[in-house]
Amino acid sequence: MVQALNAAAAGNAETQSLATALTAVRSQSLALCEPLTVEDFGLQAVAETSPPKWHLAHTSWFFETFILKPFAADYRSWHSAFEVMFNSYYNGVGAQHPRHQRGLLSRPGVEEIMDYRAHVDRHMQALLADEGHPARDNIFQRTILGMHHEQQHQELLLTDLKYSFFQNPLYPRYSEQPLPGADDPGPWGWLDYAGGTVTVGHEGDGFCFDNEQPAHPFILAPFQLADRLVTNADYLAFMMDDGYQRPELWLADGWAHSQQAGWRHPLYWLKQDNEWLEYTLHGLQPLSLHAPVCHLSAYEADAFARWCGARLPTEFELEHALKHSPVDGQFVDSGQYHPVLTTKTPGFYGSVWEWTQSAYSPYPGYQPADGAIGEYNGKFMANQLVLKGGSCATPASHIRSSYRNFFYPPDRWQFTGLRLTRNTA
Amino acid sequence: MVQALNAAAAGNAETQSLATALTAVRSQSLALCEPLTVEDFGLQAVAETSPPKWHLAHTSWFFETFILKPFAADYRSWHSAFEVMFNSYYNGVGAQHPRHQRGLLSRPGVEEIMDYRAHVDRHMQALLADEGHPARDNIFQRTILGMHHEQQHQELLLTDLKYSFFQNPLYPRYSEQPLPGADDPGPWGWLDYAGGTVTVGHEGDGFCFDNEQPAHPFILAPFQLADRLVTNADYLAFMMDDGYQRPELWLADGWAHSQQAGWRHPLYWLKQDNEWLEYTLHGLQPLSLHAPVCHLSAYEADAFARWCGARLPTEFELEHALKHSPVDGQFVDSGQYHPVLTTKTPGFYGSVWEWTQSAYSPYPGYQPADGAIGEYNGKFMANQLVLKGGSCATPASHIRSSYRNFFYPPDRWQFTGLRLTRNTA
Amino acid sequence: MVQALNAAAAGNAETQSLATALTAVRSQSLALCEPLTVEDFGLQAVAETSPPKWHLAHTSWFFETFILKPFAADYRSWHSAFEVMFNSYYNGVGAQHPRHQRGLLSRPGVEEIMDYRAHVDRHMQALLADEGHPARDNIFQRTILGMHHEQQHQELLLTDLKYSFFQNPLYPRYSEQPLPGADDPGPWGWLDYAGGTVTVGHEGDGFCFDNEQPAHPFILAPFQLADRLVTNADYLAFMMDDGYQRPELWLADGWAHSQQAGWRHPLYWLKQDNEWLEYTLHGLQPLSLHAPVCHLSAYEADAFARWCGARLPTEFELEHALKHSPVDGQFVDSGQYHPVLTTKTPGFYGSVWEWTQSAYSPYPGYQPADGAIGEYNGKFMANQLVLKGGSCATPASHIRSSYRNFFYPPDRWQFTGLRLTRNTA
Amino acid sequence: MVQALNAAAAGNAETQSLATALTAVRSQSLALCEPLTVEDFGLQAVAETSPPKWHLAHTSWFFETFILKPFAADYRSWHSAFEVMFNSYYNGVGAQHPRHQRGLLSRPGVEEIMDYRAHVDRHMQALLADEGHPARDNIFQRTILGMHHEQQHQELLLTDLKYSFFQNPLYPRYSEQPLPGADDPGPWGWLDYAGGTVTVGHEGDGFCFDNEQPAHPFILAPFQLADRLVTNADYLAFMMDDGYQRPELWLADGWAHSQQAGWRHPLYWLKQDNEWLEYTLHGLQPLSLHAPVCHLSAYEADAFARWCGARLPTEFELEHALKHSPVDGQFVDSGQYHPVLTTKTPGFYGSVWEWTQSAYSPYPGYQPADGAIGEYNGKFMANQLVLKGGSCATPASHIRSSYRNFFYPPDRWQFTGLRLTRNTA
Repeated sequence: MVQALNAAAAGNAETQSLATALTAVRSQSLALCEPLTVEDFGLQAVAETSPPKWHLAHTSWFFETFILKPFAADYRSWHSAFEVMFNSYYNGVGAQHPRHQRGLLSRPGVEEIMDYRAHVDRHMQALLADEGHPARDNIFQRTILGMHHEQQHQELLLTDLKYSFFQNPLYPRYSEQPLPGADDPGPWGWLDYAGGTVTVGHEGDGFCFDNEQPAHPFILAPFQLADRLVTNADYLAFMMDDGYQRPELWLADGWAHSQQAGWRHPLYWLKQDNEWLEYTLHGLQPLSLHAPVCHLSAYEADAFARWCGARLPTEFELEHALKHSPVDGQFVDSGQYHPVLTTKTPGFYGSVWEWTQSAYSPYPGYQPADGAIGEYNGKFMANQLVLKGGSCATPASHIRSSYRNFFYPPDRWQFTGLRLTRNTA
Repeated sequence: MVQALNAAAAGNAETQSLATALTAVRSQSLALCEPLTVEDFGLQAVAETSPPKWHLAHTSWFFETFILKPFAADYRSWHSAFEVMFNSYYNGVGAQHPRHQRGLLSRPGVEEIMDYRAHVDRHMQALLADEGHPARDNIFQRTILGMHHEQQHQELLLTDLKYSFFQNPLYPRYSEQPLPGADDPGPWGWLDYAGGTVTVGHEGDGFCFDNEQPAHPFILAPFQLADRLVTNADYLAFMMDDGYQRPELWLADGWAHSQQAGWRHPLYWLKQDNEWLEYTLHGLQPLSLHAPVCHLSAYEADAFARWCGARLPTEFELEHALKHSPVDGQFVDSGQYHPVLTTKTPGFYGSVWEWTQSAYSPYPGYQPADGAIGEYNGKFMANQLVLKGGSCATPASHIRSSYRNFFYPPDRWQFTGLRLTRNTA
Repeated sequence: MVQALNAAAAGNAETQSLATALTAVRSQSLALCEPLTVEDFGLQAVAETSPPKWHLAHTSWFFETFILKPFAADYRSWHSAFEVMFNSYYNGVGAQHPRHQRGLLSRPGVEEIMDYRAHVDRHMQALLADEGHPARDNIFQRTILGMHHEQQHQELLLTDLKYSFFQNPLYPRYSEQPLPGADDPGPWGWLDYAGGTVTVGHEGDGFCFDNEQPAHPFILAPFQLADRLVTNADYLAFMMDDGYQRPELWLADGWAHSQQAGWRHPLYWLKQDNEWLEYTLHGLQPLSLHAPVCHLSAYEADAFARWCGARLPTEFELEHALKHSPVDGQFVDSGQYHPVLTTKTPGFYGSVWEWTQSAYSPYPGYQPADGAIGEYNGKFMANQLVLKGGSCATPASHIRSSYRNFFYPPDRWQFTGLRLTRNTA
Repeated sequence: MVQALNAAAAGNAETQSLATALTAVRSQSLALCEPLTVEDFGLQAVAETSPPKWHLAHTSWFFETFILKPFAADYRSWHSAFEVMFNSYYNGVGAQHPRHQRGLLSRPGVEEIMDYRAHVDRHMQALLADEGHPARDNIFQRTILGMHHEQQHQELLLTDLKYSFFQNPLYPRYSEQPLPGADDPGPWGWLDYAGGTVTVGHEGDGFCFDNEQPAHPFILAPFQLADRLVTNADYLAFMMDDGYQRPELWLADGWAHSQQAGWRHPLYWLKQDNEWLEYTLHGLQPLSLHAPVCHLSAYEADAFARWCGARLPTEFELEHALKHSPVDGQFVDSGQYHPVLTTKTPGFYGSVWEWTQSAYSPYPGYQPADGAIGEYNGKFMANQLVLKGGSCATPASHIRSSYRNFFYPPDRWQFTGLRLTRNTA
């Protein structure tokens, strides 16, 4: 699919491949909803998460708003109220339904949302087939953007649903498939990186988001990366050494947040009958000791690293390592919706998003797109940290070394873990 | 039905009538859900309101917990987790699912809740048919209590749903029936009451809640009641006279609350194109000038009364008037889920609950039931005010003169209005 | 002094006695500030409490605003900004400095506030001496009101200061005098009251606040009052019986509040080295077992009573008892700023304010004064409960049987305790 | 003084110069308090600000805790409770008095704090005079750190006091000196910087904080800096162009914060009679159009820059410019406690701290000190942005090009402004 996207140029063959790829991405959103009951589609536990139904509608709204309305001459919007209801945060488009009330939209129902998706799909296919369209290049570029946008929401659909399900004492299972166990990876080793002047950011012709550009030179000091992710067993040792009770291990904001929130373990962990369990999309499971630790905030990841005498990597260090590693690992395509691989060298990708200590900031010379679509990434460049590498909920075709995911330091509902880093002595 | 309930004594005929009455009440809960989509059943906009599905389950839980479990020897509970999930506030029973998260229970689904109801109904009918049961009297009494309890939740189901629907910019209609207009009732007149020593509280054999007892003597000073409810037109005059901007009209707590909440009109009013609209269960409607004003907090009702040079009645004054008035008015049985009648003399009941200035307090000698069921009313006797008379969402068979409804002064999502009162000069 | 106030009619002798009484009340405010450092005068720990300096200024503002400005022809206000800075809550007068920021008024300094007081005093004395003033009656009445107002603030000055001092780990002593111990009063006995129709509210010519009128008949059922206050030893028994952990003993709002606030003991109690201490205005002291329990919220008082199988009295019951009891007990005049007497029969007054279960509501026919001064009492008749009898911080000349003090159920920083009550079997 | 500090080596002459410099810094703290009344010393308007008295005590606590207690054999601490009361945030030392309650410490009084300071000073001088002390080097280093620490609190003392004074409707003047007007600097010009590989961080022997190290190479793209600060006139143009109402100009978090806080102008601006005024430490003043705009959050600074088609600089860009500019500008030594100079080239320092877009992060290879003193800087490296150049409240001897100040993006109570930056075309 990546190839299809990347190849999307001006000929007929490319049209077909883009149209096909679009269909594939759109179908995948529906496939992910297979296990849901009608009631599940409306769940929204907190403002940061959105109901499955809303994700399905919003991704359609994206195509409608940024492609069909401006470029499809005869296009009639499905419902005028959707413009506000399914706008996420584009002030340039107009007002937005309050974010924390997305779960209160029982109408339109799931069925109508499905009809809405089909309506948008039909019109998108027609537009892509219009070879003489004067804005054909722009349409293609935005279509590709819309597909990557939809893939991002596929990941959020899973992480948001997990958070909502966790509020239910029945601990519903999203997947009935059993999760494989993880073998003991043994102690981590250190991989040496010589540093020097490297290129940061996306190079080449393939798709990337605007925040990955421009590519630019950057000086790295020599550093070492652990050859595997931190595991639950590693993290338990930190907990048993009173890691959550020792302020000297924590950033000041992290300590304050942790104390106020009463954190004592990662999100989704439960202790029953003196045994640690973890809620997963495959139901409540005994904690898998050798699986990657997951659902950590950046504060916890940082405190753990400090406890190890190590630190979090910068985004530049991780990007450098990812660039020289195959895009291989546990992605959503595996059908295992929980991290089980510790990504021993050389696979640096997948399983969990790896927290970095780098603020999500513009690259030197960064230029967002004009108009409302420019709100996609740039306006979030404050107070968030970069994460790298993709997770078990990320489509394999969606990730690359220069990809910059970003969340706030206290966020824990994504599949977030860490890889230790240290300065070369 | 009231007769059925009240007559419920020890004979076979009574068993049949109670069993029949129970079926009627239980069926009415389902009938009220006819207009709902599956998604609607899960809506919960704020902690104070509950999803329709939860109301259906909780009322069944009540029969299960207080009758079937203690008295039906062979009874097996439907699902052990329901004990916590559908417990409202009975600490004596055990823990409760967090109130503000009732809307996150997508599982069990609507279908299973319906099965649960049928299961409870079957066992209840069997138990009622067991003429030799040693606890037959207690079973009968608790069954009658459970039926009144269910009726209360029928009213809440409507008011809660209205509140949730109102968050949706599509303003869904619960009922497609048109609302009749209200005729101009003309200015209100004053009805004279001589006061003296009266009896307050429930007398006679019929059912009442524990908070209506014991009946006791009370001295009323002479007073006057308006012969009709306050209308929207009356209230608009208050608004146009800057009623919401004049602190001298307000109780101190009311003024603080109103300022903080930004109140400028009753709940559910909207101004569009310079015209006042009101959201009703029959959809968005032009404000009906001569209909009773509704969805007022006690603070607004009090400020309005003060602006008129009048005051809110005490619960004792209103009870005295209700006692000498037929139980006649606009109830939920009308199929009109919005107040349209101003209840001109002598009908004092229905349309809107009338705020009183009386704190919801125990009567002298008040004694709650023993055990968890004693939590039904007594523990709420703090910070709330009594309301009288029933509303357009109350079953006609549910109301009586001694009935004491209670809400917090700032609450506005019930069908709440007022009748002016003043001291006899 | 009470006699002086009550006698204040139109002759020269009365002028002298009122002028003298005014001087006495005003001097007492300063006398209470003797132990304070300059820095202490500015302390305000929370919005509900005010700094000593502010109390001194506000009570002067009261005379200035309601007497000197309207009636003293040549009066020039001390500083125009004081009108806002020292207005407590009189919307009819105008805007108010934000309540929670009274402690930020380092300017004017203490010295200027003292000058301001002297300025107001001089003008008040001159006005009272003006025998031919056309508004002489009104001036006298408002002066007497101002004196009672100042006495209320004298009590608040102490309770507010205590609350602020308690935030300081040095636990400052307001008084260096030792507190006497309390003898074991033995178990409480029950006093029988026959009930019947009694008069509630203030009768006779002496001063009372508007909320004590009009006097009116009221029917009391027979009841019993404990012959002493609840002691710390009594309350400890409740605590040791898990009183704070048993929801069945609590009002629903009380339980929710207590859980959220983490209450486990009365305000000002501390456990050090396994011993209970209590912070008092005489410094940190070992808990005096036989002294009255104090600094309880109404919720705690109610839960304790329920645990005893008793209840809180109504205000009508307590008033009835107080009316037939001498005004005798531990008042501020004792120089002991902490309750030490359990007020065995027949002294029902002083030591601690006794919580009642009665909402602070208007008496039938209640009429507040016209204008801003009418805001004194009436607008607070919502959400508060009545307390009776006065405390160790109340001036003896300030209290009477019909006196209605009022605070919110969760409030704990006043000297508040309880006396058990029960229905006559 | 800087020379004295920097020269502080091992000989007698150096001892004298360090002792003298210490006395100078300590005296300056007192000199800054000259205009205060006793009541002013206790003011704390919000948790982020501290009372003057607390600053005086805490800076003494720093010497006591990190030098006298570990190194002065015979030292007896002034008061054991001070260890907690005046600990700011050093968890390694122990517990801390709650930050938001520093203003409630009326005891110890100002006089005792002055005695405490003298006590610490006497012991510090004795310790510095002990030429044979085995830890002499460490003592010298920590003394120098303590002096820089005290200078930081001198600046905070002024900015915190300003914030507290602003809550007083009398708008107290800290200084009676008139402020000079600012001449129209004309439109800003652009200074070109070629970029390339530069050194970031502190080099050489002089004092620096640990967060300025290690110096390391960094690649700068070519950029341009405005040759002067943004003025009030510049900022008014943004306001009049609806800058506060246009979300497209704002970072998402900035827009949300600004809307929630109701920002419409910089902190301390007031409009009276249609004229803009600004509260300054010299009292309420007409807004000086050509003075630097001040008391902006980073969000406002960023939005303004975006409106200009420019951006905020990175800390690396500003440091590069500062490094090649004399340390010259308006500092606290001027006796003008409000920015009046727009710092035309080549003076890049002083007047206002300049916001950068750079997150306050560790330099590659950053190593905090061991023990509690290591909490000084490192644990704050989250969620804050770097500011450069010093302000009118900064001592001239305190600033240098590598100096990294840091505050949260929404903070406005420091003297914070901005200089425009853009990429070289």
